[in-house]
Amino acid sequence: MAKRVSAISTSLIRRMFEIAERAKKEGREIINLSIGEPDFDTPMEVIEKAYEYMKKGYTHYSSNLGLDELREQIAERYGVDANEVMITVGASEALLNASLAFIERNSTTLIQSPGFLSYFTYAKLCESKIFELKTHNNDFKLSAEKLEDIPKDAGVAFINYPNNPTGAVMNDKEIREVYEVLYDRGVVVISDEVYDRIYYDVKPGSLAGEENAIVINAFSKTLAMTGWRIGFVIARKDFIDEMLKVHQVNGVCAPAYAQKAVAEILEEKRDEKIVEEMVKEFRKRRDYVYNELREYFEITKPEGAFYMFPKAYKGFVEDILADKGIALTPGEAFGEGSESYFRLSYATSMENLRKAVSRIKDFLS
Amino acid sequence: MAKRVSAISTSLIRRMFEIAERAKKEGREIINLSIGEPDFDTPMEVIEKAYEYMKKGYTHYSSNLGLDELREQIAERYGVDANEVMITVGASEALLNASLAFIERNSTTLIQSPGFLSYFTYAKLCESKIFELKTHNNDFKLSAEKLEDIPKDAGVAFINYPNNPTGAVMNDKEIREVYEVLYDRGVVVISDEVYDRIYYDVKPGSLAGEENAIVINAFSKTLAMTGWRIGFVIARKDFIDEMLKVHQVNGVCAPAYAQKAVAEILEEKRDEKIVEEMVKEFRKRRDYVYNELREYFEITKPEGAFYMFPKAYKGFVEDILADKGIALTPGEAFGEGSESYFRLSYATSMENLRKAVSRIKDFLS
Repeated sequence: MAKRVSAISTSLIRRMFEIAERAKKEGREIINLSIGEPDFDTPMEVIEKAYEYMKKGYTHYSSNLGLDELREQIAERYGVDANEVMITVGASEALLNASLAFIERNSTTLIQSPGFLSYFTYAKLCESKIFELKTHNNDFKLSAEKLEDIPKDAGVAFINYPNNPTGAVMNDKEIREVYEVLYDRGVVVISDEVYDRIYYDVKPGSLAGEENAIVINAFSKTLAMTGWRIGFVIARKDFIDEMLKVHQVNGVCAPAYAQKAVAEILEEKRDEKIVEEMVKEFRKRRDYVYNELREYFEITKPEGAFYMFPKAYKGFVEDILADKGIALTPGEAFGEGSESYFRLSYATSMENLRKAVSRIKDFLS
Repeated sequence: MAKRVSAISTSLIRRMFEIAERAKKEGREIINLSIGEPDFDTPMEVIEKAYEYMKKGYTHYSSNLGLDELREQIAERYGVDANEVMITVGASEALLNASLAFIERNSTTLIQSPGFLSYFTYAKLCESKIFELKTHNNDFKLSAEKLEDIPKDAGVAFINYPNNPTGAVMNDKEIREVYEVLYDRGVVVISDEVYDRIYYDVKPGSLAGEENAIVINAFSKTLAMTGWRIGFVIARKDFIDEMLKVHQVNGVCAPAYAQKAVAEILEEKRDEKIVEEMVKEFRKRRDYVYNELREYFEITKPEGAFYMFPKAYKGFVEDILADKGIALTPGEAFGEGSESYFRLSYATSMENLRKAVSRIKDFLS
């Protein structure tokens, strides 16, 4: 085993997923609020298009960069050039490609905290040091002022809004202020924007088109296509070239028929209705859970994604799983200082959420 | 840009692919014999099953390890435990996962040469030294005796039979002899067996089940599913655990509906007929091209995959592309000492092969 993997543990989130799956198989009823994907199935119109293009022979490799028609659709939306877009096998592959291409060994990687635990793994795989940018006291938003004390050897920063696990959103002005500080310090910003279209009242900003920003996104969450593995990265051409060196020996290309199907969905702007309906449902659930639980926990009202991050006590997640069969994700999975928090994913039915809320209230009383 | 990517150039093979694609768009007729995938479309029975399971909701993440039903089918075929199988996003993702998990920085990585150029990239990404195991004088087969002089700090070896680019095959006895020597030296062997079912008269050996072997495979080549991104790895459980650490933040999971479809195809043993028909066609093509070209070039008769590796002269590939519009892959893409060779892929129609042979003869006369 190489040293670079020795510090990595098999992810807590995935372990929770496996535990929940096992329980399901054993017939125990677990309410799973630890899920990191929409509970909606992929819309039939996407499936029908994919099927059509499978039959038309889109079953071969595509170019490593992805199908031009999809790259162009994405470029148009973000106001960038199609050469600045590369299609990847989901957002995770893109994140690893970017990490291997830009995180220098022994440099310091900045990770917004609480933050998606994979970022910590990427830093470890690249044998980099980690410096957490804590946001607990600022409604989980980064603040330009607080970036003054970052280490001199900071090379790459991971930021992620709408945020997993907190649901926090930073608007365009806020995110650019943060970016400017990092840019001045010579930091390459990896902006994970996979939840960008799942937001409620505050529109999230994007760093697409910024000189030192690598924007990572996917259709996994917005088109309920997690199982399809289709993501993309937006960055300047010479950054894309470096990431391509990894991508061509890693994911190689996203499924060709899926690329073609999504390109058409975007061209016909049919994604808007799909997203709108999903967000409408997520809003209803967020409102319900937030309003029910806010008197029991300290919770920052989530403005995007499908998570909330209430503060309880260290050990709450284990207690509620053992006592009430509710699977949540423990805060420590998301970095330092989050040990008393838990992540609740409301990407499940209202029926499940009602049951869960009632069991949580039971447990607390 | 991180140091680990600075020594990597965007792959020659991919560049040839892009050049050929561009030529096609411009309306120039190029005969592309540089393709690394079957020219057959995915069989309709696989497509129909995938479509069926998409509609049934197999559009979400699967477990990182893959669907149990597919892991069990694979385990049964190889006589291993299902816990020793992990499904990946194609063979390339599996190769990168294995590399990051097992290639220690500054150790020496052994690469069979000529060998698939990605292996060189994996070694560079892991900042390892490279020692090529040359096979030019042994019909492109590794020989146990010749492994005596490998460096003391050798950690991982990449071997690949049926071989890309030569079509060489090592049978079970031969491959195990090589493995034993490497095992005695404490080397972890990554055995890339993606072409294992495309062979003619000699059945290729497999290292599945060997203690220090990581077997990489995929359905890309054998079921003509390159565009689907579905591969697998077979290794002992603790090796799988290390690779899972990377996989869970990289490919995450192969498309769920595709996993389900392939599991059924395997269960019903319908893959056998699919492979048989494909191999029958490949054999016809191999025989034709080999018999036509053997009087012009020194060629080791290929026993598997869909490549041959004739010896010409350095610069032949550029000449024949410029002069006759035939795209081949230059030997230098596959390591040292292969500069005078070229890889010819016969994964294209007999009609194209006939045209190509005639143009090559024209060029040489």
